[in-house]
Amino acid sequence: MSLVRVHNFSVSLDGFGTGEGQSRDAPFGHAGERLHEWMFATRWWHETIGRPGGTGGLDDALARRFAPDIGAEIMGAGKFGPPGWHEDPEWKGWWGPDPPFRTPVFVLTHHRRPPIGMRGGTTFHFLDAPPAEALGTAREAAGGRDVRVGGGPTVVRDFLAAGLVDRMHVVVVPILLGRGVRLWDGLEGLERDHEVETVSSPSGVTHVTFTRAGP
Amino acid sequence: MSLVRVHNFSVSLDGFGTGEGQSRDAPFGHAGERLHEWMFATRWWHETIGRPGGTGGLDDALARRFAPDIGAEIMGAGKFGPPGWHEDPEWKGWWGPDPPFRTPVFVLTHHRRPPIGMRGGTTFHFLDAPPAEALGTAREAAGGRDVRVGGGPTVVRDFLAAGLVDRMHVVVVPILLGRGVRLWDGLEGLERDHEVETVSSPSGVTHVTFTRAGP
Ligand SMILES: NC(=O)c1ccc[n+]([C@@H]2O[C@H](COP(=O)([O-])OP(=O)(O)OC[C@H]3O[C@@H](n4cnc5c(N)ncnc54)[C@H](OP(=O)(O)O)[C@@H]3O)[C@@H](O)[C@H]2O)c1
Ligand SMILES: NC(=O)c1ccc[n+]([C@@H]2O[C@H](COP(=O)([O-])OP(=O)(O)OC[C@H]3O[C@@H](n4cnc5c(N)ncnc54)[C@H](OP(=O)(O)O)[C@@H]3O)[C@@H](O)[C@H]2O)c1
Repeated sequence: MSLVRVHNFSVSLDGFGTGEGQSRDAPFGHAGERLHEWMFATRWWHETIGRPGGTGGLDDALARRFAPDIGAEIMGAGKFGPPGWHEDPEWKGWWGPDPPFRTPVFVLTHHRRPPIGMRGGTTFHFLDAPPAEALGTAREAAGGRDVRVGGGPTVVRDFLAAGLVDRMHVVVVPILLGRGVRLWDGLEGLERDHEVETVSSPSGVTHVTFTRAGP
Repeated sequence: MSLVRVHNFSVSLDGFGTGEGQSRDAPFGHAGERLHEWMFATRWWHETIGRPGGTGGLDDALARRFAPDIGAEIMGAGKFGPPGWHEDPEWKGWWGPDPPFRTPVFVLTHHRRPPIGMRGGTTFHFLDAPPAEALGTAREAAGGRDVRVGGGPTVVRDFLAAGLVDRMHVVVVPILLGRGVRLWDGLEGLERDHEVETVSSPSGVTHVTFTRAGP
């Protein structure tokens, strides 16, 4: 059975997966880029954006598990664009003409529109469906490969609460955002269904992996 | 100048320093003992309660920084006793006749009572004063040594928000409590005034130390 995976999902020490005040100029609100600096420093990220250099240690090894064996992504409307994106018929996401997903991407939204084909294998589909049903659709498109739940925090939380996530990689960044959207709310006892492993990185972040206990 | 220190303060991954439903039978509410199992396993804890054995690694090394150079503790009414303790004139804290503090302890409470002298050097004083004023009193009693802020989460948070904490050792336990009292609320930007270091332990917990940037 194909797995449901979350990768490189960054939260502040106080549990926020994005800041307050998201806008076209500030995709993460007042958090700025602070939640993902650890990732931008990796060799994997440098390769992704076609630049030389980058770190090659623990952060890199974990970050680059993002793509292998993934056949589709599910993301929330809040990851696809800033508040109000659906009023702009030209909005095609943050990622330019050649988005890094390279698979079908299912955008969960109450504002559906026709699919948008992009370069490099990414197609954005717009879906108004509860998590389990959206997963069924994404699984079909993934052709036996895994489905990534790409965020934001609301959607990851919803999939966790529905018991649909098999593997999750969360990165705790040692900053206190104080406000924004929390990842962890309403997930009491999540550790009972998952093995949790924690490893701190010399970069200062902490990687927490959740692996759903096998049958 | 004597320092203000927090030690062995345990929170769940979702940031709770205690669970919901505190009572005489459940000092940490539904959290039970799960926030402190890492500590109970250490050699330091075993020594404290007069038992042989215990682990001798990272958890132990950090845990045993609790006592050295401490001349007084400040704690909240919620650490001193369960809800309603002040209606029981016989209540003398959770720790039996010989509490592990061995210094003056200032219990912040709106329900003052006369001091209680215990065995082994602990005296409980009851103080109704804002954090900075309480610290002044505790510092005087500490005779030049450091003051520990002992918890619970409300009092630690208040002292952090007032900018009074010089050293803090927080232990993140990989469980999700879902409800209780949060440590981190309202502390946006705390990392700006502190160096933050994170190290994960083979036991599964993560130690996060905050050191206030020197002048
Ligand atoms: N920390 C990280 O690693 C990370 C990763 C990815 C993104 N992010 C950030 O996270 C933020 C977005 O997160 P968010 O929590 O605000 O929003 P989100 O999870 O991306 O999206 C939530 C929105 O998606 C739509 N939606 C969700 N489930 C749905 C369903 N079942 N059916 C129909 N529509 C559904 C709803 O929007 P509508 O009702 O408006 O359609 C809902 O408000 C952005 O700032 C982004 O940059 C962070
Ligand atoms: N996670 C850990 O490592 C750790 C460490 C220690 C304790 N704990 C747990 O934490 C829980 C208690 O924490 P909590 O956050 O509920 O309460 P708390 O921080 O221990 O105490 C808060 C209470 O103290 C009194 N108080 C605080 N500041 C005051 C001031 N400036 N002046 C006068 N009174 C003041 C008030 O009570 P009144 O108005 O009733 O007097 C207030 O409600 C317990 O379950 C305890 O076992 C956890």
